[in-house]
Amino acid sequence: MIRLPPCKTLLLEKQDLALFITLNRPQRRNAMSLAMVSELAEVFAAIAGDTSIRAVVLRGAEGHFCAGADIQDMIAARSEQAGEPAEEMGGSRDPFYKLNRTFGYLLVQVENAPQVVITVLEGAVLGGGMGLACVSDVGLCTPDARLGLPETGLGIPPAQIAPFMVRRIGLTETRRLALLGLRFDGPEAVRLGIAHELVEPEVIPMRLKDILEQVRSSAPEANRITKALLHRVHNEPLEDLLDDAAEQFARAVRGQEGEEGTLAFIQKRKPYWAANEGAEKEATASRPVEDRE
Amino acid sequence: MIRLPPCKTLLLEKQDLALFITLNRPQRRNAMSLAMVSELAEVFAAIAGDTSIRAVVLRGAEGHFCAGADIQDMIAARSEQAGEPAEEMGGSRDPFYKLNRTFGYLLVQVENAPQVVITVLEGAVLGGGMGLACVSDVGLCTPDARLGLPETGLGIPPAQIAPFMVRRIGLTETRRLALLGLRFDGPEAVRLGIAHELVEPEVIPMRLKDILEQVRSSAPEANRITKALLHRVHNEPLEDLLDDAAEQFARAVRGQEGEEGTLAFIQKRKPYWAANEGAEKEATASRPVEDRE
Amino acid sequence: MIRLPPCKTLLLEKQDLALFITLNRPQRRNAMSLAMVSELAEVFAAIAGDTSIRAVVLRGAEGHFCAGADIQDMIAARSEQAGEPAEEMGGSRDPFYKLNRTFGYLLVQVENAPQVVITVLEGAVLGGGMGLACVSDVGLCTPDARLGLPETGLGIPPAQIAPFMVRRIGLTETRRLALLGLRFDGPEAVRLGIAHELVEPEVIPMRLKDILEQVRSSAPEANRITKALLHRVHNEPLEDLLDDAAEQFARAVRGQEGEEGTLAFIQKRKPYWAANEGAEKEATASRPVEDRE
Repeated sequence: MIRLPPCKTLLLEKQDLALFITLNRPQRRNAMSLAMVSELAEVFAAIAGDTSIRAVVLRGAEGHFCAGADIQDMIAARSEQAGEPAEEMGGSRDPFYKLNRTFGYLLVQVENAPQVVITVLEGAVLGGGMGLACVSDVGLCTPDARLGLPETGLGIPPAQIAPFMVRRIGLTETRRLALLGLRFDGPEAVRLGIAHELVEPEVIPMRLKDILEQVRSSAPEANRITKALLHRVHNEPLEDLLDDAAEQFARAVRGQEGEEGTLAFIQKRKPYWAANEGAEKEATASRPVEDRE
Repeated sequence: MIRLPPCKTLLLEKQDLALFITLNRPQRRNAMSLAMVSELAEVFAAIAGDTSIRAVVLRGAEGHFCAGADIQDMIAARSEQAGEPAEEMGGSRDPFYKLNRTFGYLLVQVENAPQVVITVLEGAVLGGGMGLACVSDVGLCTPDARLGLPETGLGIPPAQIAPFMVRRIGLTETRRLALLGLRFDGPEAVRLGIAHELVEPEVIPMRLKDILEQVRSSAPEANRITKALLHRVHNEPLEDLLDDAAEQFARAVRGQEGEEGTLAFIQKRKPYWAANEGAEKEATASRPVEDRE
Repeated sequence: MIRLPPCKTLLLEKQDLALFITLNRPQRRNAMSLAMVSELAEVFAAIAGDTSIRAVVLRGAEGHFCAGADIQDMIAARSEQAGEPAEEMGGSRDPFYKLNRTFGYLLVQVENAPQVVITVLEGAVLGGGMGLACVSDVGLCTPDARLGLPETGLGIPPAQIAPFMVRRIGLTETRRLALLGLRFDGPEAVRLGIAHELVEPEVIPMRLKDILEQVRSSAPEANRITKALLHRVHNEPLEDLLDDAAEQFARAVRGQEGEEGTLAFIQKRKPYWAANEGAEKEATASRPVEDRE
């Protein structure tokens, strides 16, 4: 069991195979402060190697997912650079550069998290909130959620977020939404592909339970390998990817999960990773002692 | 105020923050002649640096958007090369090569126009008309529009257009539509993502007015920066793009629009760029005199 | 007329301009055995240069398309490597590597087939069956088809297939489907873009007939050029592609099909390639004898 870092802006709860992360600044509709960004980064770093955490559920406290960047951080950055002409500030010292770029690093980190990342989109899903929505593996969205990129209306570009929106839903829809600064609701979010499922607030716990059961059926190592392969498709030549994918297939099929999966299939029983929590411990005890590659 | 070039095939009208361009060869359903291509290129070049033009509305005269390439140009090109064996003609001299390639240059130019480009798709939207539809930021389409790539039925590939269609709606749909030479209507165009909104002809003026108001709310410089960033997503490594995007964010937030945007947000008023035409002049007069980066 | 290779796992039938390939292992729901993979590869190689075959229809025998990889091959590969420690096996000798990689080669080959490839998705469309669905130009799917990537539930990654699914329907949907190992039906397959049309089983023959008529209207050479261009969009810089596309356009317009297409258009008649089978022979006889580039 890994140790989770202490957090001021997040609530963390491990339940069975999932870590529930609650963005917890409800008085500011969970606006993404610098402190929240760095706590999220620490948490995802801490669990990256923990194979007992097979899913992460990201949700906001009290009915909003995340209303975007915190204007207080912007004001602080402005006073930090007061008096110094912009021309003399290199990228490395510039507080606005850091404020902005740091969030992009977080999005890449969450995108590449080995866990299945599930977002629950309710209320305000703006700016940075939209960014997190765009890097999740599974997105649930309530009908009355309010999504959008309001940045250009504030005189600034959605610099770290718009690229992830293009990767999520394509250029065709992103250009219209970003350039017109449009707001949209849950059904439109599902139509666009920001989220996968439209859910009424009262059924969210039940849907999460079902989705986590589906995560349980998937072998954890195989899922990690698969997720990493998927993310490489747009970044490297197809043939190279397929070569390496075949290597990983060969290793997986000979590994613990591959042997167990074939055997369980033939024996018409659930493999050990699909057993529920209590049963899992038992199954673990009976696993062959074997080095994993 | 910039000077617009004189045009024979286009009608140009500046209204407030938008330039309305009407393809005006209604007797040929606004088929894209070489003259029209070069006039469009001249107009987009002329307005590229004009920040008073924040949107372009592209529409065809008399109920058709654009029926494709002009067969007369094809016939002229054929006679131009008559007698010379194809083998001896280098790409640079070949009239067919030039006829075709020139349209691709125009599409790239319109794609990269710093303005919000809005197309109004009615009647015939074929070949080159489809190409223009595929590079717009916002597409309106009437239910009875007729769209398609008829080229392969004429024995030629949709060489400059199909690539933009792949970028617009993906390979999966483009391969079917192009290889079968299918025609489709407005609802299908919206489903595919060629256009964004289905509109009845009588509400087009009202929808354009609303969309142009949305353009007005977005800061012009921030919109230009955002549009340029979006187009880079599929062309360069993500991390490089995010680095540069953060630099642009830092510059924007310290610039005139960024300062005004934050201030207007705190003061709960509209920023100067969102004021309507009469009010805008007033606001301009009271802007701080300051160099823009 | 080309000679088709003898096949044990496939039924082949040439009808007019199309080759019908039936995956024929109904007792195993047409699971993709190594033998079937290599026979498919031979058939597609044999017809690659045959311009009389303008379409390929891929279907499974007795109500299933293809239930995925054959577990028998997996078991054989396991026994083949028994006794040899995995560490000593290079990629080239590894039976699991070969088993997996070979299917990826087939998918690339089918993706690049110059013909219009049509899949008929019925019953089980799993694993490898999904892979074939993802490389077709036109996909028909029955409402009660069962599609999915069940691999991670068996402890292995869908290594050669998931990349093609990302290319078909994007990362956003693939990550959810692959990581949760979800099954879905025909309407969802059409919504996702795995298939293009939802069809009831009894109308499949009629729809195939219509689609093949649409293939007939498209010039065969122009279609081959177009398909090859489409596949290059995501793999090379746009400007380079457009340059080469213009060269191909110029060659096509001066070629036999380009001349015939323009002439037929002006004469308001069907071009020779669009005539039906009986008529085609006649038309062929009256074609100008001319070298094709």
